[in-house]
Amino acid sequence: MSKYIHNLNQELTQWRRMFHSYPELGFTEYLTTYRIGKILEEWDYTLFIGKDALDSDARVGIPNKDILTHFEQKAKEQGVEESWLRKMTGGNTGLVATFDTGRPGKHIALRFDIDALPINESTHQSHIPASKAFNSINPRVMHACGHDGHITIGLGVAKYIYEHQNQLVGKFTFLFQPAEEGGRGALAMTKKGWLANVDRFYAGHIGIKEMSVGNVAATVKGFLASTKLNVRYHGNASHAGMNPETGKNALLSAASASIHLYGIPRHSEGTTRVNVGRLEAGSGRNIIPDAAYMEVEVRGETKELNNYMTEHAKRIINSAATMHDTECEITTVGSTEEMDCSSSIINNIKHACKKSNYVKNVISETSVSGSEDASYMMNEVLKHGGEATYMLFGTKLDYPHHHPSFDFQEEVLPVAVDTFTRIIEQENIYSIGEG
Amino acid sequence: MSKYIHNLNQELTQWRRMFHSYPELGFTEYLTTYRIGKILEEWDYTLFIGKDALDSDARVGIPNKDILTHFEQKAKEQGVEESWLRKMTGGNTGLVATFDTGRPGKHIALRFDIDALPINESTHQSHIPASKAFNSINPRVMHACGHDGHITIGLGVAKYIYEHQNQLVGKFTFLFQPAEEGGRGALAMTKKGWLANVDRFYAGHIGIKEMSVGNVAATVKGFLASTKLNVRYHGNASHAGMNPETGKNALLSAASASIHLYGIPRHSEGTTRVNVGRLEAGSGRNIIPDAAYMEVEVRGETKELNNYMTEHAKRIINSAATMHDTECEITTVGSTEEMDCSSSIINNIKHACKKSNYVKNVISETSVSGSEDASYMMNEVLKHGGEATYMLFGTKLDYPHHHPSFDFQEEVLPVAVDTFTRIIEQENIYSIGEG
Amino acid sequence: MSKYIHNLNQELTQWRRMFHSYPELGFTEYLTTYRIGKILEEWDYTLFIGKDALDSDARVGIPNKDILTHFEQKAKEQGVEESWLRKMTGGNTGLVATFDTGRPGKHIALRFDIDALPINESTHQSHIPASKAFNSINPRVMHACGHDGHITIGLGVAKYIYEHQNQLVGKFTFLFQPAEEGGRGALAMTKKGWLANVDRFYAGHIGIKEMSVGNVAATVKGFLASTKLNVRYHGNASHAGMNPETGKNALLSAASASIHLYGIPRHSEGTTRVNVGRLEAGSGRNIIPDAAYMEVEVRGETKELNNYMTEHAKRIINSAATMHDTECEITTVGSTEEMDCSSSIINNIKHACKKSNYVKNVISETSVSGSEDASYMMNEVLKHGGEATYMLFGTKLDYPHHHPSFDFQEEVLPVAVDTFTRIIEQENIYSIGEG
Amino acid sequence: MSKYIHNLNQELTQWRRMFHSYPELGFTEYLTTYRIGKILEEWDYTLFIGKDALDSDARVGIPNKDILTHFEQKAKEQGVEESWLRKMTGGNTGLVATFDTGRPGKHIALRFDIDALPINESTHQSHIPASKAFNSINPRVMHACGHDGHITIGLGVAKYIYEHQNQLVGKFTFLFQPAEEGGRGALAMTKKGWLANVDRFYAGHIGIKEMSVGNVAATVKGFLASTKLNVRYHGNASHAGMNPETGKNALLSAASASIHLYGIPRHSEGTTRVNVGRLEAGSGRNIIPDAAYMEVEVRGETKELNNYMTEHAKRIINSAATMHDTECEITTVGSTEEMDCSSSIINNIKHACKKSNYVKNVISETSVSGSEDASYMMNEVLKHGGEATYMLFGTKLDYPHHHPSFDFQEEVLPVAVDTFTRIIEQENIYSIGEG
Repeated sequence: MSKYIHNLNQELTQWRRMFHSYPELGFTEYLTTYRIGKILEEWDYTLFIGKDALDSDARVGIPNKDILTHFEQKAKEQGVEESWLRKMTGGNTGLVATFDTGRPGKHIALRFDIDALPINESTHQSHIPASKAFNSINPRVMHACGHDGHITIGLGVAKYIYEHQNQLVGKFTFLFQPAEEGGRGALAMTKKGWLANVDRFYAGHIGIKEMSVGNVAATVKGFLASTKLNVRYHGNASHAGMNPETGKNALLSAASASIHLYGIPRHSEGTTRVNVGRLEAGSGRNIIPDAAYMEVEVRGETKELNNYMTEHAKRIINSAATMHDTECEITTVGSTEEMDCSSSIINNIKHACKKSNYVKNVISETSVSGSEDASYMMNEVLKHGGEATYMLFGTKLDYPHHHPSFDFQEEVLPVAVDTFTRIIEQENIYSIGEG
Repeated sequence: MSKYIHNLNQELTQWRRMFHSYPELGFTEYLTTYRIGKILEEWDYTLFIGKDALDSDARVGIPNKDILTHFEQKAKEQGVEESWLRKMTGGNTGLVATFDTGRPGKHIALRFDIDALPINESTHQSHIPASKAFNSINPRVMHACGHDGHITIGLGVAKYIYEHQNQLVGKFTFLFQPAEEGGRGALAMTKKGWLANVDRFYAGHIGIKEMSVGNVAATVKGFLASTKLNVRYHGNASHAGMNPETGKNALLSAASASIHLYGIPRHSEGTTRVNVGRLEAGSGRNIIPDAAYMEVEVRGETKELNNYMTEHAKRIINSAATMHDTECEITTVGSTEEMDCSSSIINNIKHACKKSNYVKNVISETSVSGSEDASYMMNEVLKHGGEATYMLFGTKLDYPHHHPSFDFQEEVLPVAVDTFTRIIEQENIYSIGEG
Repeated sequence: MSKYIHNLNQELTQWRRMFHSYPELGFTEYLTTYRIGKILEEWDYTLFIGKDALDSDARVGIPNKDILTHFEQKAKEQGVEESWLRKMTGGNTGLVATFDTGRPGKHIALRFDIDALPINESTHQSHIPASKAFNSINPRVMHACGHDGHITIGLGVAKYIYEHQNQLVGKFTFLFQPAEEGGRGALAMTKKGWLANVDRFYAGHIGIKEMSVGNVAATVKGFLASTKLNVRYHGNASHAGMNPETGKNALLSAASASIHLYGIPRHSEGTTRVNVGRLEAGSGRNIIPDAAYMEVEVRGETKELNNYMTEHAKRIINSAATMHDTECEITTVGSTEEMDCSSSIINNIKHACKKSNYVKNVISETSVSGSEDASYMMNEVLKHGGEATYMLFGTKLDYPHHHPSFDFQEEVLPVAVDTFTRIIEQENIYSIGEG
Repeated sequence: MSKYIHNLNQELTQWRRMFHSYPELGFTEYLTTYRIGKILEEWDYTLFIGKDALDSDARVGIPNKDILTHFEQKAKEQGVEESWLRKMTGGNTGLVATFDTGRPGKHIALRFDIDALPINESTHQSHIPASKAFNSINPRVMHACGHDGHITIGLGVAKYIYEHQNQLVGKFTFLFQPAEEGGRGALAMTKKGWLANVDRFYAGHIGIKEMSVGNVAATVKGFLASTKLNVRYHGNASHAGMNPETGKNALLSAASASIHLYGIPRHSEGTTRVNVGRLEAGSGRNIIPDAAYMEVEVRGETKELNNYMTEHAKRIINSAATMHDTECEITTVGSTEEMDCSSSIINNIKHACKKSNYVKNVISETSVSGSEDASYMMNEVLKHGGEATYMLFGTKLDYPHHHPSFDFQEEVLPVAVDTFTRIIEQENIYSIGEG
């Protein structure tokens, strides 16, 4: 096994750097999806793209038409084939790839998220993607959460299955999910039914906790349930010098809401979070702003705590409208659930990795306080009696996730591929052939 | 005289509608400047454009290079000649046109502002520019303050001088000023020296007060001194779920500043104003916002009151940085002075308009509470011993200035042209020829 | 006349200092009322106290029962007679004193306000009341608005009428009004009917504008209409450490309301004001505050502007409740009207003061931007066809009104008495006797 | 043992109700201290009061002199002996009582807190103290945290030791601590040296968690480190109508601070808390408030988290001063440390209570998120090698601690006394006598 990984190493780095250079935001991953698909095609995977991959109507937080069209046009210019574009048009990105060995065995699903973030990547020469010239070519978009690595790991695992298909049993479903940021894509894939008959579900993330390369956490707890809200305030414009009194100030509504949202009382029963990640308001300096837009997110350690935050947030957002005599519109554009990994799976993972040259240590559990829409997939698998987990793969980070200088050690890639493939080998080995 | 106007009427309407359709923001009036210049060229005016028209370094609030380049490119596509563009490049828009009769007489300067506003024009069929198909072709830019009318009036007066040059004495200087909105262009023209030897300065606005068409105010009081500030907050980004405590929230700094700015105490000595006309902050929903940008404006009835507002505003803006542990940068990007019209000029204007068929009534004075950077020009003329005024030309307004549905009655255009030309005729008539 | 004043001078100083030492807040002027009454009794005035002086139900902003009882008890200890206290009990303070010469002539009403402010008087030796040992004996109560002087002037005028009764005609009504601060007492005296048949109404204030001693303004403009609101927020208490989420924070409602109230947009049609003069909230450090109390005041140059401010204030106060999920109660506890002095009265006053040794100069008009509930009395007199004015009497002020170091020059007292008495002499002289 | 308790029951109820009726705030527990002392004197305890009991200079958050004098005077009127008052004067309340059996054995220290809260007790007949007529006779002061019960338990245990002294060995130190609320008294007793040679330290609280009567938690975790701050803002007063611009608004500083304090970012490493428990500002409605006072508290799960909160709080409080151009003074008036109970003690307690008729169940540990200055005492004992714990005694609560209707079931009193005395018996039994 380790030999397989060893040979794969150079390819992993190349994939990673290619995807890193071409980051795309959620539901505009046209080129990314296409590239993943073209690689998988060569390995005999059956591909599902566009509305064959996800329940289009279950997506939330889709960019507006102008933006989608802009990126579809761009993808075309970048060489994405018309037939692919036609299927993905309207933000139906991401793909599902299946591989059936034809032999009875477990159905294993693996999920890898593929979208990037609206961050302007550092060009400082101390930032390795910059000094090694694979940093983002797209202004204000960056793989600052490691999803370029996730795609790469997925491809590495997919290639393993393809190359070892004779030794394997059962079925494999790869979910290359769009729009994880904002919790917008997982539910749409889940609703398409991919998780209904899955025996084992595996997903993971690189580098969230202080774990060095070679360390793996078999499960995580602490992923927060979350709700994402878009808010629009509508007021009245007027000349700020001549008629300040006829204006209805939407900018101030957004400002009041922002300040008060962070003051939602802490809760004695657990962790909560709130953020106003974007605010845009007003048109010109001497005009009372008649419009404002905010992107808000709340989280809670449990569904109840998330509901507590959501209710307070909505009341505050509405009060900030009446405070300045404006009107307000709240749209829910994303959500994640809390996540409970199957603890039964821990020992399997530990056992599978025992002889690995890459995985030095598997800890049972770690905790984080982010949010993950893989939760929808996991909960679906658990509901149908399967087992599921979300793993963490250690890497030193000089800068936190979502930072313009975020980068990870590429040595984590073979560690993760080795973990996944050893688990698969242990679960779905074709015992006779092995004999 | 009135006959001259009568014949001009159709041309006024055509000019107005053309300029209305192609609104351009301050310091990007490339096409507008070009079109004004090409018309004036035909009437033997001497033209000064680019750095010949204004002191380039005295401009404030210049758009950034990308924006300028974008609009220069667009102007080129719209047919502006290379030789013109070369001179205007970098936002050196606007022009000065002079006409010297060669006969001794007063030097009269006339100022017309030419820029538009960042407003999305109404397309409702009750909005005449929409129903008559001359509304803005540029999204999010609109002549919502009547400067399209001002340009038109200037051209009407310029044509009169050209056609009546044999009956006139003295010199005429037309200042087609860029970037009045935000108080950014007048100082740069003033510093170029155009106002140093001027005997009479005339400027004006259409439609600010409830005066119907035919009513003219010979002077205005109440224009406020003003200061325009751009503010940038710099904080730290971090993952809002995983590390809320390491973020330094620039969005909240802007929100706190906004709310507290409107609370600057009213002043017992006169009118003050404050507005935060734009606020942009943050990059993504789950990232603590590390950057925020605000456009702020304060005003005061006197220089002292404006200083009072500016000092409070700066203290509040800085305090909002320390409140959230961010850093802040304040740039002054525009200003206007208070304005004192020469009352000595009132009776001249009344006398000049006595026999007009267009001007029904001239009132001595009205008051407004906007701001005007023509104040820099006026104060310069007054300083050198000249006389100066700023007039208002009545028109019914269904919507206030700076409103997406702003429109004026085109009947005001001949009224204004008639007022200006009658004043000129009275001031600079070639008495012998008249004999 | 001036001789009369000359002899009175020492008495004026004594009265002023006595009243200064015993300041009492609105509707608790038990001792003050008693002392004024005991002096007037000796001069044959007919006195009306308690419910004979004012329409008890028309008072607003009455202190609560505990406070009234406390001060009634204190007044008793200070020697106020039982028979007086019985009439005044429940905050029915102030008195009306009438003098009828029995001869036909004008009915002149004069109003003097008698209440003090909740301010802790300075004990610094540069403060004359402190260095001359007549500063307030009541902690946190102070005559910081000059009403001690007003009472004194009223008594000086009253004594003049008593001593010169044989030379005078007509009737005189002295209104020693309680609770001017907060605009709480005038309406109650007005509703009692005292102003219905008045020919001339005179009131005044010492020292509001930069006028030195000897200067008198015959009329004032600019007094603002005003509304005074008391606000109570009711939330839920909870342990701030153990159950922060079950609290409903009334303190934060009051804080949000305060900050937003000052941000009510300035109005283009004239002066507006807003103040939160008091805020009390919470019971203990580690308890989420379940109660908050605010004293708010808005003003406007006209009734319409005051209504504009009142409506915005109420909306903001209510929004601040929903913002923090509390409930709120708004009570209107005082108000004043705008004030229009009779300009017809100006020349009379100028003429009357022509020969005064005290009044050096009478100007026609000055403007201030405070509020005065004498406006209710004036407007009542005007409504019935009488004439009315509110005068200002100049004095140098080292500190503004309502400041802990406020003090006026006692030389203003004879100036004011001389102005009032000369007006009276001119209006109501018994011409035959004068002959 | 249980028989002892059975006989004591009526006395416990009487004591509890007496102390409940006479609640006193921290450092004014003159009558409470005296009453405790007089009871202990009868049982041969050696008493230490005033500066013999605590390090007077180590107290924080002492009421001002006027308040202390007021309550000392009141205590005198209530019959506290002069000799006692002299020692306690200046807020040196609380007492230490020691009992030495003269026989070698462990030194056991027991701490009971004695102060009440600034809460107006409910008089509703559904509130048992009201219906049974033992509610607070002191307006706005109430035993709403069960310290009346704590005193009672302490007395019950003290009486047991006195009555069973022949069967016991070692030494006993009872710390009846003042001013636990606000974390103000424990450090002063600790610094006096009482905890230096203690082998076992026991303290406890009634009713914090959902545990019914008979349930006892042997240890608690989760008590938060905390810092208590008093804040004063100093501005400038001015007349809100006439000179709003010369005021410097201290009320607004406090309001801005309050709103922003609750918005201190949540911390990923653990629980934090913040509260502004009191705010008082301003003097009169039409005066710009020149003074404001706030009582603030922050908490953190660890010392580091508490420091994080304290630093942010101070920066915000200071920024709110510059925001409104006022000055500010921050005083630290109390603090608590985090608390780590000795887990080694758990089994001892479980064993000791095994045969109790009162204690039905002992759980090892529970968690709360309040703060306790007993932490200073515990940490001192631990530092010197002793063992220490803080127990919880279950009781149903219809209302939370610090609520005007807070009440506990008196049945918890014998449970707690039985727990303490059984532990003592087990630890310090005179084995020979027992023989």
